[in-house]
Amino acid sequence: MERVDNLAHERETAQFDVEAMKIVWAGSKHELDVSDRMARLVASDPVFHKDNRTMLARKELFKTTLKKAAHAWKRINELHLTEEEASKMRFFIDEPAYTDLHWGMFVPAIKGQGTEEQQQKWLPLAYKMQIIGCYAQTELGHGSNVQGLETTATFDPNTDEFIIHSPTLTSSKWWPGGLGKVSTHAVVYARLITEGKDYGIHGFIVQLRSLDDHSPLPGITVGDIGNKFGSGAYNTMDNGVLQFDHVRIPRDQLLMRLSQVTREGKYVQSDVPRQLLYSTMVYVRQTIVADASRALSRAACIATRYSAVRRQFGSQDGGPESAVINYKTQQNRLFPLIASAYAFRFVGEWLKSLYTDVTQRLQANDFSTLAEAHACTAGLKSLTTSFTADGIEECRKLCGGHGYLSSSGLPELFAVYIPACTYEGDNIVLLLQVARFLMKTVSQLTTGKKPVGTTAYMGNIEHLMQCRCTVNTADDWLNPSAIQEAFEARAVRMAVNCAQNVSKAPSQEEGFLNLSADLVEAAIAHCQLIVVTKFIEKVQQDIMGNGVKEQLQILCNIYALNLLHKHLGDFLVTGSITPKQGALVSEQLRSLYSKLRPNVVTLVDAFNYTDHYLGSVLGRYDGNVYPALYEQAWKDPLNESAVPEGYAEYIRPVLKQQLRLARL
Amino acid sequence: MERVDNLAHERETAQFDVEAMKIVWAGSKHELDVSDRMARLVASDPVFHKDNRTMLARKELFKTTLKKAAHAWKRINELHLTEEEASKMRFFIDEPAYTDLHWGMFVPAIKGQGTEEQQQKWLPLAYKMQIIGCYAQTELGHGSNVQGLETTATFDPNTDEFIIHSPTLTSSKWWPGGLGKVSTHAVVYARLITEGKDYGIHGFIVQLRSLDDHSPLPGITVGDIGNKFGSGAYNTMDNGVLQFDHVRIPRDQLLMRLSQVTREGKYVQSDVPRQLLYSTMVYVRQTIVADASRALSRAACIATRYSAVRRQFGSQDGGPESAVINYKTQQNRLFPLIASAYAFRFVGEWLKSLYTDVTQRLQANDFSTLAEAHACTAGLKSLTTSFTADGIEECRKLCGGHGYLSSSGLPELFAVYIPACTYEGDNIVLLLQVARFLMKTVSQLTTGKKPVGTTAYMGNIEHLMQCRCTVNTADDWLNPSAIQEAFEARAVRMAVNCAQNVSKAPSQEEGFLNLSADLVEAAIAHCQLIVVTKFIEKVQQDIMGNGVKEQLQILCNIYALNLLHKHLGDFLVTGSITPKQGALVSEQLRSLYSKLRPNVVTLVDAFNYTDHYLGSVLGRYDGNVYPALYEQAWKDPLNESAVPEGYAEYIRPVLKQQLRLARL
Ligand SMILES: Cc1cc2nc3c(=O)[nH]c(=O)nc-3n(C[C@H](O)[C@H](O)[C@H](O)COP(=O)(O)OP(=O)(O)OC[C@H]3O[C@@H](n4cnc5c(N)ncnc54)[C@H](O)[C@@H]3O)c2cc1C
Ligand SMILES: Cc1cc2nc3c(=O)[nH]c(=O)nc-3n(C[C@H](O)[C@H](O)[C@H](O)COP(=O)(O)OP(=O)(O)OC[C@H]3O[C@@H](n4cnc5c(N)ncnc54)[C@H](O)[C@@H]3O)c2cc1C
Repeated sequence: MERVDNLAHERETAQFDVEAMKIVWAGSKHELDVSDRMARLVASDPVFHKDNRTMLARKELFKTTLKKAAHAWKRINELHLTEEEASKMRFFIDEPAYTDLHWGMFVPAIKGQGTEEQQQKWLPLAYKMQIIGCYAQTELGHGSNVQGLETTATFDPNTDEFIIHSPTLTSSKWWPGGLGKVSTHAVVYARLITEGKDYGIHGFIVQLRSLDDHSPLPGITVGDIGNKFGSGAYNTMDNGVLQFDHVRIPRDQLLMRLSQVTREGKYVQSDVPRQLLYSTMVYVRQTIVADASRALSRAACIATRYSAVRRQFGSQDGGPESAVINYKTQQNRLFPLIASAYAFRFVGEWLKSLYTDVTQRLQANDFSTLAEAHACTAGLKSLTTSFTADGIEECRKLCGGHGYLSSSGLPELFAVYIPACTYEGDNIVLLLQVARFLMKTVSQLTTGKKPVGTTAYMGNIEHLMQCRCTVNTADDWLNPSAIQEAFEARAVRMAVNCAQNVSKAPSQEEGFLNLSADLVEAAIAHCQLIVVTKFIEKVQQDIMGNGVKEQLQILCNIYALNLLHKHLGDFLVTGSITPKQGALVSEQLRSLYSKLRPNVVTLVDAFNYTDHYLGSVLGRYDGNVYPALYEQAWKDPLNESAVPEGYAEYIRPVLKQQLRLARL
Repeated sequence: MERVDNLAHERETAQFDVEAMKIVWAGSKHELDVSDRMARLVASDPVFHKDNRTMLARKELFKTTLKKAAHAWKRINELHLTEEEASKMRFFIDEPAYTDLHWGMFVPAIKGQGTEEQQQKWLPLAYKMQIIGCYAQTELGHGSNVQGLETTATFDPNTDEFIIHSPTLTSSKWWPGGLGKVSTHAVVYARLITEGKDYGIHGFIVQLRSLDDHSPLPGITVGDIGNKFGSGAYNTMDNGVLQFDHVRIPRDQLLMRLSQVTREGKYVQSDVPRQLLYSTMVYVRQTIVADASRALSRAACIATRYSAVRRQFGSQDGGPESAVINYKTQQNRLFPLIASAYAFRFVGEWLKSLYTDVTQRLQANDFSTLAEAHACTAGLKSLTTSFTADGIEECRKLCGGHGYLSSSGLPELFAVYIPACTYEGDNIVLLLQVARFLMKTVSQLTTGKKPVGTTAYMGNIEHLMQCRCTVNTADDWLNPSAIQEAFEARAVRMAVNCAQNVSKAPSQEEGFLNLSADLVEAAIAHCQLIVVTKFIEKVQQDIMGNGVKEQLQILCNIYALNLLHKHLGDFLVTGSITPKQGALVSEQLRSLYSKLRPNVVTLVDAFNYTDHYLGSVLGRYDGNVYPALYEQAWKDPLNESAVPEGYAEYIRPVLKQQLRLARL
């Protein structure tokens, strides 16, 4: 294929230093370097090629994943990669695999819930992958409601063992990644029963498969739960089903950091505070927010580059047609997605620092910010993943027909991404948790309890309930404090409004249930405010590089004003802005889009994604889209022969009117 | 599996006659009967089973589609099915196939654009499927902009032939369904060039493959364009690529109803009005709206039944947990989708009558309503398909984790549905067409030209620009004229507002391009008004059956008020309603959801879909979900052996620390 940069003219118009922006996006020069090295390492290794992934049948697909995982582990050891490097490497391999759960859930569960002794026993085995573990919580009948899980772990004092059992069909473990075909062990969540009493859900380390020949141990039924959304995508993962028929495990395989069962069967709580568990949740959700920014930026990168290549209409006097990226509707759909990717990147970065802060406080027995941090991460997980899922699909639509081809990379990206809206907490269930926290915060305002962290603005309630937005011209909307105040007023007024309506109901709980649709909207308003605030704060920091800050400023304004426009009803109903001011938002957005236009291709270059990672013929760095589409097409198995299999049996008899005789 | 109706209790609470509702949904008793018969015929025939579709590799999948198509044709002939029956049968087979394009595009193109003589020659061959045709318009480089197509058809007077040629890579035909592997013929759109002059795009009948052995004819390169979104889904279709190297066809294979080329090479327009072409477009888009209501109703049926089965949280004193359908957030997401399915059904029914009306007028040389009908169908195609695509994905999310399994049916339904947003006109491009029509209509209001059809309300502009909504209580929102007027005021005010802003630009065209994002919103407002109006009109008709009208009334209100709430910003900015009235909308919606709740399962039963057609373990009529999920899982090829393929090469060496020696 010819080596030309079809996007060179786009790159020439950029008004900022792309190398400096790459550092801002990566987080630091060091992180950029590590990412860059790992991305290239993966891209240059033929074992990690992935362009035929959507064409493989399940078994073949799964086998290539096993191969990639083994090869990655081999390379990690050979090259003595650090943990940071290894995790980046796995990220760029870009394929869900059992290792995600082993490193991301199994190991952290033991670290978080195991005693020192248990950690010493199990972690070295896990670190060397002498055992492979998964996280078996969800059951066929229960996901969101963890307290409803049915698997039992009954202590038998005669043998000093727990008996793990699946009493019903719906108690079958269902969904755990890595469980179906690979894991030798699992952290299994089950109802702890001892001395006839049910103490609720606890985690247990259970061996599932023989370490000799990998066959399931006696009493264990285990398998894969079958095909999932899309081709390729998450089908590389062996999400599994698991049933226990009175499986016995030693007592010391109950994870005992928080509570123990004595040799006699007495249930004892340790003095370690239960709140510690939350910090793991904050950690995991923080990584999910980071993943959201990566998935959205990837989709936006593909759609942006292709929109700059794709020409349609607008030719004058036989000259070239207009690139579709010049159409205002295309900009209005695409540019807020680029801005959101940046917004999520920065709120993710901030969440990481929040996690550090929370952990330090916990170690000092300070629980004062935990509930707020928990609500905040739950809300941001929900907000960013829902938006990203929709955003990827919008990027696909922005590519017209060609976005529907697997070779565009977008169908698989969507299919593999969307479960993020469901796992680690269904997004609506999470927003309801945020709403509960907001209602509590509002009710405590009168008691003088000061709201902390991301709810601190609520302390300013008197001002926010009656302030009036002072925007007079479209340019006034470039003022960060005008934006911030409008978002704060909207959030606080929606929350207060809900609280008032809830309090009219016969009981608080009834009111909450009845108004939950409104409460979800109030929670969203609060979470959007957080993202807007963190973006504004980011832009107010010192930022190196020619023109970098100016671009981030534009992106920040696009992010906020686009949200304002999309949720205009909220802002108007609460009187946070006037209809006139709402109209000025649209005007300012048009002007911001024009300012961003010469920079967009370079702004997505700053993500520094390799063509291997993007995995999209439409998103190629060089914009040389059409020959690539054409070449890729011919690789389809259907093109192995000019006349398709089945012609003689099913096409010819139709054409020749010989169907009556045909045996079908 | 046990035969119990887990949803019997839901069906008992219905307050209307489901059999009567089935007739309303189907359109008539006759249509219900035909549908019912065909659905059962398909469901009971093992050749049409489809539950392993998402597990098949492309070649195998494609072969089963060929088999189904041949078998269907055989059965159609054996049973002497009518056209209506045959088309219903194809619908319930529920698998995109080359026959869709043959019957849906190739035959109509010849009917619409061929002369009497051409029809007599080609149609009998096509009706008997002695030739199989496709519709080859889109190229690698051009979709939306049909005028930009590059394929040439140059007349050669020496041989009385057209020379069809692909001068560039981007001129390759790309996307036509049925082209890749099956079609023997195509209607090819190409630039007609004669006597050195380019007369623009015309349709030609071109033979592609030998009728003897199916091999591509000389000069023709043809193949499949490769894997598309999802597994199963649209991959049953051979969307194709096609290049011509100076392929010669007889002159009389130019479709000549509208224009001809004489033996000498003179280009001559016939006296048949070009507008006739529009009527085909109206027809095709009308069927797309009908399809939208079917796809959305199918997804809503699955999500509704499963939501009534799925229990999570809310258990009191160890009693059963609450079905998730009782949560207001679930209702707020799901019930408007059910209402929209009904809304689209009725607007589709109305569009069918519009098509008949337009056709009759055209035959009488009356073109007065054509432009309006064209804009209206373009807008409704866009509105209903975009909403349905999002709605299917929302239904999937409403099913929590299990919605992500292929066996839920929702992933495939989404993947197969979404191209409807792109083909037959990209949805944004279509809305821009509607917006252009609206701007024209507004500008003509002052000239006294009366707006017709769905824009007639604009004639009432003076009232609508200044009227005030009189709603005072939540119940006032049950008044159809209050709803209607609010939607009319919003639509007209948005259109007028856009027109004013456009007129401020240096040129009308520049203004239009610059404001196109706002214009799209105005177009959407107009289209939503049409759907609301037609639903209100439907409910005002005589409707048979106990309680049926009452349910439709509730659905109609939910449809309209949910839209009002979602687009509250529009209504408030235009002053069509006040913030207070906006808050009353939410209140009324809550009450409407409670009224609908006892009827929802029966309302989706009224679609009369067989379990075969639904293709979803979650949507089963009997609600017996869990055993079905469990059973289906074990059918995955990965479960053929307990220890997976690849264990020896890729898992064991990891566990046994023997990777260094392993050859990967
Ligand atoms: C790809 C994937 C990977 C996974 N990996 C793992 C894993 O490794 N280990 C593991 O243990 N699990 C795993 N899971 C399971 C996952 O954690 C659950 O699917 C998730 O918690 C959602 O629960 P659910 O499926 O029961 O949804 P449900 O709770 O049944 O949700 C169904 C619907 O009910 C609504 N709903 C539920 N409760 C309420 C309420 N109180 N109020 C209002 N609405 C409500 C939801 O919003 C949703 O619309 C995975 C799931 C997926 C899809
Ligand atoms: C499954 C499937 C089946 C198909 N079957 C057939 C078939 O049988 N025969 C056939 O001939 N074709 C077929 N097509 C092609 C289909 O008709 C085109 O994909 C469609 O017309 C869209 O054109 P495009 O792909 O060129 O999109 P583009 O026009 O390239 O769209 C890209 C982006 O540009 C935007 N855009 C384009 N023009 C403008 C404008 N003027 N103003 C603002 N924005 C604009 C669009 O909104 C979109 O976001 C099929 C396509 C698919 C996906």
